Amino acid sequence: MTATIVGIGQTEYSKHSGRTELSLAAEAILGALGDAGLRPGDVDAVIRYDWDNIDELTLGTHLGFGNLRWMSQVGDGGPAGNAVIAQAKAVIEAGLAETVLCYRALNGRSGERIGQGDEGGPARGAEAFQIPWGMVAPVTQFGQFARRHMVRYGTTSEQFGAVAIAMRRHAMQNPAAVMRKPITLEDHQNSRMIADPLRLLDCCIETDGACAVVITTADRARDLARRPVEIVAGAQASGPGGGAAAVFRTDLDVSEAVHCANDLWSRAGGITPSDIDVAMVYDHFTPFVIIALESFGLCPTGEGGRFVEDGNIELGGSLPVNTHGGNHSEAYLQGLSHVIEAVRQLRGDSTAQVNGAETALSCSATAGTSSAVLLRRSR
Amino acid sequence: MTATIVGIGQTEYSKHSGRTELSLAAEAILGALGDAGLRPGDVDAVIRYDWDNIDELTLGTHLGFGNLRWMSQVGDGGPAGNAVIAQAKAVIEAGLAETVLCYRALNGRSGERIGQGDEGGPARGAEAFQIPWGMVAPVTQFGQFARRHMVRYGTTSEQFGAVAIAMRRHAMQNPAAVMRKPITLEDHQNSRMIADPLRLLDCCIETDGACAVVITTADRARDLARRPVEIVAGAQASGPGGGAAAVFRTDLDVSEAVHCANDLWSRAGGITPSDIDVAMVYDHFTPFVIIALESFGLCPTGEGGRFVEDGNIELGGSLPVNTHGGNHSEAYLQGLSHVIEAVRQLRGDSTAQVNGAETALSCSATAGTSSAVLLRRSR
Repeated sequence: MTATIVGIGQTEYSKHSGRTELSLAAEAILGALGDAGLRPGDVDAVIRYDWDNIDELTLGTHLGFGNLRWMSQVGDGGPAGNAVIAQAKAVIEAGLAETVLCYRALNGRSGERIGQGDEGGPARGAEAFQIPWGMVAPVTQFGQFARRHMVRYGTTSEQFGAVAIAMRRHAMQNPAAVMRKPITLEDHQNSRMIADPLRLLDCCIETDGACAVVITTADRARDLARRPVEIVAGAQASGPGGGAAAVFRTDLDVSEAVHCANDLWSRAGGITPSDIDVAMVYDHFTPFVIIALESFGLCPTGEGGRFVEDGNIELGGSLPVNTHGGNHSEAYLQGLSHVIEAVRQLRGDSTAQVNGAETALSCSATAGTSSAVLLRRSR
Repeated sequence: MTATIVGIGQTEYSKHSGRTELSLAAEAILGALGDAGLRPGDVDAVIRYDWDNIDELTLGTHLGFGNLRWMSQVGDGGPAGNAVIAQAKAVIEAGLAETVLCYRALNGRSGERIGQGDEGGPARGAEAFQIPWGMVAPVTQFGQFARRHMVRYGTTSEQFGAVAIAMRRHAMQNPAAVMRKPITLEDHQNSRMIADPLRLLDCCIETDGACAVVITTADRARDLARRPVEIVAGAQASGPGGGAAAVFRTDLDVSEAVHCANDLWSRAGGITPSDIDVAMVYDHFTPFVIIALESFGLCPTGEGGRFVEDGNIELGGSLPVNTHGGNHSEAYLQGLSHVIEAVRQLRGDSTAQVNGAETALSCSATAGTSSAVLLRRSR
């Protein structure tokens, strides 16, 4: 029972939705079900982000789901985007549910902003060892990993800029993207330093919106509206390193992504990095695109900076990345919008379509946990 | 690759641990790993309660886990106890991890008390439709389902009392239990009304403590310290009813438990309710033991009250239930202590041992979600 993605849905992405997260979630979910030609009563499993404020029972009440036979959540923010899809594959292929719903809804700009500093209240757990040293927000935490890459491999700020520029160019072709004004390397270099070495244009945007993805068996998919996209393999990894808090880690090399890649390729049924036609890479901060490309074997280790600088990740390059504009220019949906764009590419209807795309990787090299799903156009 | 439980661990249960939840979790986990003859570095997956304050990355830092290849969480409180085990089975049998850790740690008495009313701040989501009507705590919410059973089947408060008395009798044999003073039906009937029809002695206790369970493949289990316990089947269910908020439901009959039972028995490989030697039933409130016995086919529907009144659920009866004392008298660990007691029974070392116990059911008939795991002594 191969698991396939049969429906995708999203709301408008904006800086101020003016709506509840429940309303956003419902719209994206009904969109994804409608796209597939399914109804809410067909949903019999939900796998969601633990950061989501909208739970499956509340949604079930409002939308009329069937009996849910599997309910789980994935933590750690952005990497959950691929992980929920990877878990959906496992559940379906074990025969424990037939139709799995994954979603992410957040008023991430007009409501609580993930990127803002953690100021109020006592620092708990790992935070207590970081906040006193100025590690008050994701940008301060993750900057250290970027610096490590620069020191170890000679990666430059201009190479980070090449990532931001590529994402913006792709977004300019995507009417749904929030940020579509062209940017240059000069703009990047002139953008203000937020947490050295990360400048404003190295940071993803914050937006309101929701995404949903519906997964079912290949058998069921045959009768549905859209050409299904096969989930070939999925993986999650924490590494043995111990989370994103640099103070507790044995390395700053995001080794979790290498562990994740090893599992992914070992489950890939013979598909290798050279088979990937288009990649979606979780881009909360530009350096992590470079780190992901290296970790997942899409370019040699230590050469990610040159790889992006040479234009390989732009449409027309050897490996287009984030053809929707990614978290930098389309919207910040914590990785699930990347899965949706991978599906559009394999259906052939991206706004920055890679000709003949048959195999796509959506991956995240994130300090803390990393994740990936390998997707293929159904024959 | 059959999934088996190979290690169980728990801390002291108390009303005031005087320790952090992290410390409690670590002790229970090291206990479970030690019981199995495994080390922290062997853990390659964590499936936990989303209500837990201690996450897998923090624990990995402190204890030295290996690379975690699967991380997920289960919501909705008590029913997660069986659900985490059911999910562990799926992950192991899919070959996605080899050694899964499940745990629950809470200072549930000296810290935040789940049973207390929700008073501060604005009511959100379903709560906004309940709190203004006095549904401020679990006891007020769940009382309605108890009343429904009384109205429909003639179940009595004295029958609820029979559940409380049986749990206490079992706890009197369990040195780890927090509540070991004998109680009579008179004590139950004289205990004060909390939320009609639920009296004080219909409510579980609140305690501090932690539990942990380690699951691995049958192959790996062969070399380990303890006789493994096979996880034959697992199930979760939300029903189509829409959560524990009575105001949103189409019924007050806890139909989710019937959905859960249907899935469980369909996956049981020929084991039927009459094969169950001992049952652990999530007992946040006494009536839900009666509802579970009926829902999972352990007694006829509508006859649960008479079944418990006739002594069937006591040690020596036809189906001993909660031989550890359950949430009512041992401790409130949200269902995971029930799984641990089922394992002890199948190993033959419960403090209220059922002679020759070979097959155990741990189940939860909870409005919101229900769950179950079917366990068998390995041959």
